[in-house]
Amino acid sequence: MGPGPSDVNPRVTNAMGASTIGHLDPAFVTLMDEIKQLLQYAFKTRNRATIPISAPGSAGMEACFVNLVEPGDKVIVCQNGVFGGRMKENVERCGATAILVQDAWGEAVDPNKVEEALQSNPDAKMLAFVHAETSTGACSDVRLLTSLAHKFGCLSLVDSVTGLAGVELDVDGWEVDAIYSGTQKCLSCPPGLSPISFGPRAVEVIKNRKTKVQSWFLDMQLMMAYWDGDASRTYHHTAPVNNMYGLHEALVILQEEGLENSWARHALNHNALAAGVEAMGLQFVVSKEARLPQLNSITVPEGVKESAVRARLLEDFNLEIGAGLGALAGKVWRIGLMGHGSSKTNVLRCLGALDAVLSDMKAPINSGQAVAAAMAVYR
Amino acid sequence: MGPGPSDVNPRVTNAMGASTIGHLDPAFVTLMDEIKQLLQYAFKTRNRATIPISAPGSAGMEACFVNLVEPGDKVIVCQNGVFGGRMKENVERCGATAILVQDAWGEAVDPNKVEEALQSNPDAKMLAFVHAETSTGACSDVRLLTSLAHKFGCLSLVDSVTGLAGVELDVDGWEVDAIYSGTQKCLSCPPGLSPISFGPRAVEVIKNRKTKVQSWFLDMQLMMAYWDGDASRTYHHTAPVNNMYGLHEALVILQEEGLENSWARHALNHNALAAGVEAMGLQFVVSKEARLPQLNSITVPEGVKESAVRARLLEDFNLEIGAGLGALAGKVWRIGLMGHGSSKTNVLRCLGALDAVLSDMKAPINSGQAVAAAMAVYR
Repeated sequence: MGPGPSDVNPRVTNAMGASTIGHLDPAFVTLMDEIKQLLQYAFKTRNRATIPISAPGSAGMEACFVNLVEPGDKVIVCQNGVFGGRMKENVERCGATAILVQDAWGEAVDPNKVEEALQSNPDAKMLAFVHAETSTGACSDVRLLTSLAHKFGCLSLVDSVTGLAGVELDVDGWEVDAIYSGTQKCLSCPPGLSPISFGPRAVEVIKNRKTKVQSWFLDMQLMMAYWDGDASRTYHHTAPVNNMYGLHEALVILQEEGLENSWARHALNHNALAAGVEAMGLQFVVSKEARLPQLNSITVPEGVKESAVRARLLEDFNLEIGAGLGALAGKVWRIGLMGHGSSKTNVLRCLGALDAVLSDMKAPINSGQAVAAAMAVYR
Repeated sequence: MGPGPSDVNPRVTNAMGASTIGHLDPAFVTLMDEIKQLLQYAFKTRNRATIPISAPGSAGMEACFVNLVEPGDKVIVCQNGVFGGRMKENVERCGATAILVQDAWGEAVDPNKVEEALQSNPDAKMLAFVHAETSTGACSDVRLLTSLAHKFGCLSLVDSVTGLAGVELDVDGWEVDAIYSGTQKCLSCPPGLSPISFGPRAVEVIKNRKTKVQSWFLDMQLMMAYWDGDASRTYHHTAPVNNMYGLHEALVILQEEGLENSWARHALNHNALAAGVEAMGLQFVVSKEARLPQLNSITVPEGVKESAVRARLLEDFNLEIGAGLGALAGKVWRIGLMGHGSSKTNVLRCLGALDAVLSDMKAPINSGQAVAAAMAVYR
C-alpha cells in the first residue's frame, strides 16, 4: 500500500510466468495488437500511436519529451511535486527551455497561473503537467489545462502514471495530445512498462521534426514500425515479452471490471480510508476537492517519527506504506489504494494496523475509532 | 532456438512470479546488492558500476553512449552486422562523429583496419565494437581490440549482448572500459534488462563531463545513487521488480554451474550442431575460427524458401529458429544455442526437425545423416 508498485493480481504474475516466445512470433504479434486495443480502451482513445514503452514510467516521460521537443523549443512545465521537476530536467536535456509554473506541494496545478504563462510565452510549443502527482496525491484538471493549452496553440502533454484506471481520464474527449502512464500503479502490473499515447497533433509534430530524436531506443517512428507495421513487423528492440503477458492480463482484468467501475471502486475505498483517517484525528495533505483516491498523503502527527511507524508496519504487519518525497520528506505518509490493492480488506487492515502502531507509540490520535468509521462507509 | 529471447529455465519464470515488493523495500535492496555481486561474477570484474539497466539491451547500448560521449566527440565504430550500425546511430544522436570501420557481414572485426583507423584519428575518444554479432554469429577479439584502443589512448566500449555467459569474456583481465549485455540471450532470462559495467577510466570520463547526459532515465550518476547508495537509497526510477527476481535467479543458476562450465557447455553443443549441419551438407556463414557457439548462421541452400522452412518448424515442431537480418535477410537461418537452450536435447531435436522439413521439401541435402553426426560428438 505504498505509492507503487501496487499489489499485483495473481492472474497477472501467473501470466508473466508463461514460456517466453519470440518477439516476432505470430502469436506475439497478435498479443501486441490486443494490448494496443486494450490500452486504447483504458485511455479512452482511438489514437493509433498507443503502445507500451519497454521500460518504466520515467522512460515513458522521456519518450514523450524527446519525440515532441527539439533544441530551441520552449515548454511550459507545471511543477507541484517531484514529477514536474523531472519534466523540467527532460526539457532541458532536449536542449529546450522550460518555463516553470509553480504551485505548492499538495496543491493542484492552478489554471490561472497556467493561463498567465501561456499568455506571456506566445512562442511556447507545449504545456506539460502531471495529472496525478504521486509525490503528493493532488489531482489536476486535465480537461481544463488541455483546453487552455489549445487556446494558445500549444500541445498538451500529460503525466498520468498514477492516474490511469484509478480516476477519470478521457484522452479523446479531453483532446489530450500526448500522455504517458506506468503499469505499476492502478493497472496493478509489476513495474517495467510505460503505456503512452500520441494524438493526431502530436503525430504531426513528430513527422515534421527537423532533427533526429536524440534517443534511438525511444524514437517513436522506429517503435511504430515494430508495433504498427503490416503482417511483417520491423525489428526495433527486443520487447520484454513476459512483461507484455502481464500487461495484457491486467488490461483484460480492467476490461472485465469496466473502466468506470474501476474509477468508482477507487473512489469508494478512498472515502472509507479517509473516514478512518479523519476519525483518528489525522489530516490529509491535499484538500478534499483535489484529492486523488489512489494516493493518500497524510500528515505525520507531532512528535511521531515517521520512519519508525513505517518500519513497524512493515515488520509487524507485512504492510508497506510510502514515505514523503522532496518537500514532504519526513512530514507525510503516502498510502496507496491502487488497482488490485484498492480493496475493502486493505483499507480496514491498514487503518487497524496504523491505529495499533500509533496508539502503541502514544501518538496524539483518537484510538480505536478508525476501523468503525471506515466500515460505516461501506454499509 | 532463435537469436533470442532464448528458452527460459522454469526456475527463472517461477522467481518472476513472486509477489511484487517495493523498489525501496529493505529486502529488495539486499536483492539488488546480490545482483550486483552476481553480475560482477558473470562479467569477471570488480567494477563497482556494474548494474542492470531497467530496459532491454538497446537501452544498455544507449546508456553507454549517452554517458560516455559528448557533443563534438569522435568515436570509432566497427560495423560487421546490424548492431555496429545501431552504434553509429547512437553516436550521431549524441551530437558526435562516428568513424566507421567496416567488415563484411559474417566476418570478425579486422584488427588491422581498427589500428589504421586509430592511427588516422588521434582525436578519437573511444573504440566501440560488438563482441558477439547476433545478426551474423561472428565473434570478435575483445582483448586484442581493447589493447589497440588503449595503445592509442581510447576507451573501449563492447557490445556483449549475446556474448555474456556463452563465450569467454574477462572484463577486468582484458581491461574493458565499458560493456553492456542483455538478459535474454545466454543468461536465459526473459528480455527486459540490460546488465552494464563501467571500468575506472570510463567512470572518470563520466565524472568529468562538461555537459549533462542527454537522457535523464539513463544518467549513470543518478542511477548509481539508487544502486550504490548507503542504506538509504535515492529513488531514481521504479525498478522492474519482478524482472530483477528473474535476473537474480538466472545468475544464481549460472554461478551454480560455474562460468567456465557454461562456456564449455556452449562450445560442446555448438560442435554437435555443427557436425550435424555439415553432415547435411549445409554451410556456416562464419568461418570456424570466428564462430560463436551460441549463434549459428547457416546458409539457406539453393532453391529453398527460407521463411517456409521456419514456418513449418514453428507450426509442426513448435520450434523457432531465426531469419537473417539486413544484408543476410532471406539468405540465412540463425539457430540459437543460448543459456538454458544450449542442450543436447535441443541440438538433436533441431537437427532432426530441420532434416525432416528440408527432406520433405526435396532440398539438396544429405538426408538422415545429421542426428547421428551430432550424437557422435557427445560420445
